[in-house]
Amino acid sequence: MLRADVATPALFLDIDALDRNISAMAKHATTLGVDLRPHAKAHKCVQIAHRLAAVGAIGVSCATMEEAEAMAGGGLRGILITSPLAARWQFERLRRLLLRGADVSTVVDSAAQLAGLAEVAASSGRQLGVIVEIDVGVGRTGCVDVSDIVAIAAEAKANLMLRYRGIQAYWGNLQQIMPHTERARLAGIQIDRLGGIIAKLSDAGLAPEIVTGAGTGTFSIDAASGLFTEMQPGSFLFMDSCYGSIDLGIEAGFETSLFVGATVVSSTRPGRVIVNAGLKAFATDSGLPVASRGAPAGATYRYMGDEHGAVDFEGEASALGSMIEFVTSHCDPTVNLYPAFHVVRGSEIIDKWPVVARYGSVN
Amino acid sequence: MLRADVATPALFLDIDALDRNISAMAKHATTLGVDLRPHAKAHKCVQIAHRLAAVGAIGVSCATMEEAEAMAGGGLRGILITSPLAARWQFERLRRLLLRGADVSTVVDSAAQLAGLAEVAASSGRQLGVIVEIDVGVGRTGCVDVSDIVAIAAEAKANLMLRYRGIQAYWGNLQQIMPHTERARLAGIQIDRLGGIIAKLSDAGLAPEIVTGAGTGTFSIDAASGLFTEMQPGSFLFMDSCYGSIDLGIEAGFETSLFVGATVVSSTRPGRVIVNAGLKAFATDSGLPVASRGAPAGATYRYMGDEHGAVDFEGEASALGSMIEFVTSHCDPTVNLYPAFHVVRGSEIIDKWPVVARYGSVN
Repeated sequence: MLRADVATPALFLDIDALDRNISAMAKHATTLGVDLRPHAKAHKCVQIAHRLAAVGAIGVSCATMEEAEAMAGGGLRGILITSPLAARWQFERLRRLLLRGADVSTVVDSAAQLAGLAEVAASSGRQLGVIVEIDVGVGRTGCVDVSDIVAIAAEAKANLMLRYRGIQAYWGNLQQIMPHTERARLAGIQIDRLGGIIAKLSDAGLAPEIVTGAGTGTFSIDAASGLFTEMQPGSFLFMDSCYGSIDLGIEAGFETSLFVGATVVSSTRPGRVIVNAGLKAFATDSGLPVASRGAPAGATYRYMGDEHGAVDFEGEASALGSMIEFVTSHCDPTVNLYPAFHVVRGSEIIDKWPVVARYGSVN
Repeated sequence: MLRADVATPALFLDIDALDRNISAMAKHATTLGVDLRPHAKAHKCVQIAHRLAAVGAIGVSCATMEEAEAMAGGGLRGILITSPLAARWQFERLRRLLLRGADVSTVVDSAAQLAGLAEVAASSGRQLGVIVEIDVGVGRTGCVDVSDIVAIAAEAKANLMLRYRGIQAYWGNLQQIMPHTERARLAGIQIDRLGGIIAKLSDAGLAPEIVTGAGTGTFSIDAASGLFTEMQPGSFLFMDSCYGSIDLGIEAGFETSLFVGATVVSSTRPGRVIVNAGLKAFATDSGLPVASRGAPAGATYRYMGDEHGAVDFEGEASALGSMIEFVTSHCDPTVNLYPAFHVVRGSEIIDKWPVVARYGSVN
């Protein structure tokens, strides 16, 4: 099947660009001396997780219980749930995952949740790995006080059904700070604090075997700190227009591999065509899609309601019924909008990979 | 099953509030003397379309080929595709819909597309209803020049395989203009122009049998003009926080029926809890979700990345693992994020209705 003949809106993944991004990140990890546990919240795709495992990734980071289930079901190992769990249904499903023999660990940021996890482990008869999450200035999840971190780690270590593995420290709020020097300065403040926390844990006999974190925007800074044992980047796989426009501080070698294809469905004014991709076809939180393959010269996109976008341009219009592709401004929530990647090489569709664990998919 | 036990994020639909909204709109249509062809782009749900048909809706407006297929497959009649079609795959699938005996019409805004539709009708051996779309100041789809409107209508009428039904005029850009008097003034400008176009068509022997358009924000203005034979509203079913906050110019009697349920997964700072619903769980184009059922007093929500939101409040925190529900700021693209509505009455789940024709669902 040809790329131009796919029903739209559709999600295209350039497999060669993807593989070059994967190779580049594997090489960075080796050079920096850290492990890779790339984040499934970006790709939600078993096939991509296996491609990462093939270049040495030690596991898969997962944001949700559904992602962990899908990755375990797809045969992936080294699963780490990076968001704290709290609801009964989350604990019950974690228990079922353990009973199925999944290799899964999870983060925790409160004693109450640790007690819940201990019960899950006990009732499944399987030891559960836990990682204490630290709030490193984001104000989101994670323990705030060092005394809490040490207490939860100690409690985890003391429980025979739990296996204390270490800590998670992820500064999501710093990933796209510009310029890079300012990003490095702000990360440096957290790195100093993190070093102090690791020292305190070590003093208490709780030295972390794993220190996990790092995203596409700060991985080189974080790894260079010497504190992290592994990294959880995800966006490097796709390189949306936001990540594509920032300085990563090194010759990262990442390129855009993800595109949304849309069809020109109307052309009744000079200098403008209308495509069938609007607010439902893109994540809209981080700016506008960028016109790419098939777009007229000088094309810019803007939203025109739920179902449409306007492409304004100078010069000759794209033909009615033809396809225009767009680079999304935010890859993770855009991927979540589609049931599958159409895997492309040049103008050909060579495969179709399901997007798994979309929101609300298990209930 | 209890509402509080559903895995989150989840989409809740209060069936009694929904039915009250449906009854209210049916009554408005009767009072105003116009037909109802409510828009499936809002609900994407066969069960809701049947509830609307039960109170007298003459059909279903659809934004995409997938919606038309899903509604036809669900036994709905009077389907009108309200966006112009242009791609080969769209024409081919329209042909298959006709061959299956679907009662479907479509809009058109160019002679080239009309030729494509005529071929579809001829090759299926079934007459196809067409409606000429007029650009009424939106700058999106629709014919701009009156001469084009008349020419396309004439060509449609002259083709035995097509059935010229009338015109579509929808001012989507005016639906939420405030105050209501300004909305009415701006709609009035388009109503005057529309009256002129209808007169020109009538003079040419092309008087429209159908004049379709109108949304939740302008239906009372549009219907009062006497030009419209039918209305296509959708958001009145759910009443998101944007529609809920504007003056509709009449005692509309609509109330919020749609909620997103999320779980409190972390609570490590005073005055703040973290829920597992962020940029992937809500449409983000029209402002922030509004905390509702289960929220602490004075709660406000803000996005904290793809997977989380922060709920800041005064007073006592919601318990870890408990549910907080939110009113979405934009219903249509939020519905598109979920595979199903959990239909609720009070604290009970009484049914589950699939959300059909989500983006990228047919390929």
